[in-house]
Amino acid sequence: MIIGIGAGDPDHLTFQAAKAIAAADVFLLVDKGEAKHDLARLRHDLIAAHARPSHRIVEVRDPERDRTSPAYTAAVEDWRSRRARIYESFITGELADGQTGALLVWGDPGVYDSTLAGLEEVDAEFDYEVIPGISSISALTARHRVGLTRVGRPVHVTTGRRLAAEGATADDVLVMLDAACSFAEAGDDFHIYWGAYLGTPDEILISGPVGAVADEIRTARAEARARKGWIMDTYLLRRP
Amino acid sequence: MIIGIGAGDPDHLTFQAAKAIAAADVFLLVDKGEAKHDLARLRHDLIAAHARPSHRIVEVRDPERDRTSPAYTAAVEDWRSRRARIYESFITGELADGQTGALLVWGDPGVYDSTLAGLEEVDAEFDYEVIPGISSISALTARHRVGLTRVGRPVHVTTGRRLAAEGATADDVLVMLDAACSFAEAGDDFHIYWGAYLGTPDEILISGPVGAVADEIRTARAEARARKGWIMDTYLLRRP
Repeated sequence: MIIGIGAGDPDHLTFQAAKAIAAADVFLLVDKGEAKHDLARLRHDLIAAHARPSHRIVEVRDPERDRTSPAYTAAVEDWRSRRARIYESFITGELADGQTGALLVWGDPGVYDSTLAGLEEVDAEFDYEVIPGISSISALTARHRVGLTRVGRPVHVTTGRRLAAEGATADDVLVMLDAACSFAEAGDDFHIYWGAYLGTPDEILISGPVGAVADEIRTARAEARARKGWIMDTYLLRRP
Repeated sequence: MIIGIGAGDPDHLTFQAAKAIAAADVFLLVDKGEAKHDLARLRHDLIAAHARPSHRIVEVRDPERDRTSPAYTAAVEDWRSRRARIYESFITGELADGQTGALLVWGDPGVYDSTLAGLEEVDAEFDYEVIPGISSISALTARHRVGLTRVGRPVHVTTGRRLAAEGATADDVLVMLDAACSFAEAGDDFHIYWGAYLGTPDEILISGPVGAVADEIRTARAEARARKGWIMDTYLLRRP
């Protein structure tokens, strides 16, 4: 089972996800070098809180991804193949007949997460279920008390790289994975709703006209990242 | 509090939402003429399961929306103003000092839902919190076991009207509110992942190349709608 566990607040967990955790025999935790993350600890906490006493945890170190490569998609795909081998070993080596394995995924498994695509490359017989979770998109808009969508209008969900390359392609653009703070590219007529560490005690929320708050966001982001060693953030750009 | 309760499965409820329901004194249920819906009953069930014994429910009939008007946005905005008056009466008339009111919203309050926009028009002093929920987008992609997004690519979230007018504006388009089955507009090179009554016992899932399954979806949709009297569906279009 691929279980979405929400954006960072343990109470983002759904009853469906809690039941799925309770139904699993073995958990695969792939450590993306985030062992020191509060998020990694939270994953252990959720298993401790909801799993059956007889559960087992298998921890594996994630294959390194070549983050220096300019061929972003190719690098991700190569990394995903190696990830698929991990899933394969887990399924064929760690699960006895009739046993259920589980993978916990931050946010929603459908939103910029490579677990599902990795599973498709697994060369083994198995069936699986996907449990949806509260995405950082839902967490962001809820905390800012704004809609992701406006009446009858589209919203584009995209990455920081795309925003930097293409600019804002709609009046409402939700941006993820933006380490480069590309929001300034959108132009001053946009309003930004930015959030980091959503749903956690470290949560930071900043909103306002892009021109007015861009520096504040850059500073807050750099300080938080230096202090904690990692950051997860996302934002909505909206032309009023 | 505006509480997202998920797409139809009672187990889509998050712990955060369950706690919010338990913390509320009075619930406002706005009946959109869906009293006979299973969904409306589910709302009552969730309150019964999680609310404190002393809770109170206020039921109000939704103002009629002019569905014949070609000016879709204007009709929605007029309807939203009247909806704001309902919220205003609830806040000023039904909540004593220190009492907490709650509105339960299907799916996620940020996704094509007018509650938040309606609240902004309320002319009264009040504070509120928004609790994110599992959207029909997350439920759809989880049930089809596909990602909403592909590596490094955008997804456009839009309405059936827009799709009919503009065609597919990206290789990945998530369409909501499409009573006219406009997916055929996307063209035969798209794959469709369609779902109705997601997370409920009536759930229907159909996927395949648009050209191959369009008729099957139209037929299933018309039959289900006639049988149940209502339908809620959504789909992802993806160019392979």
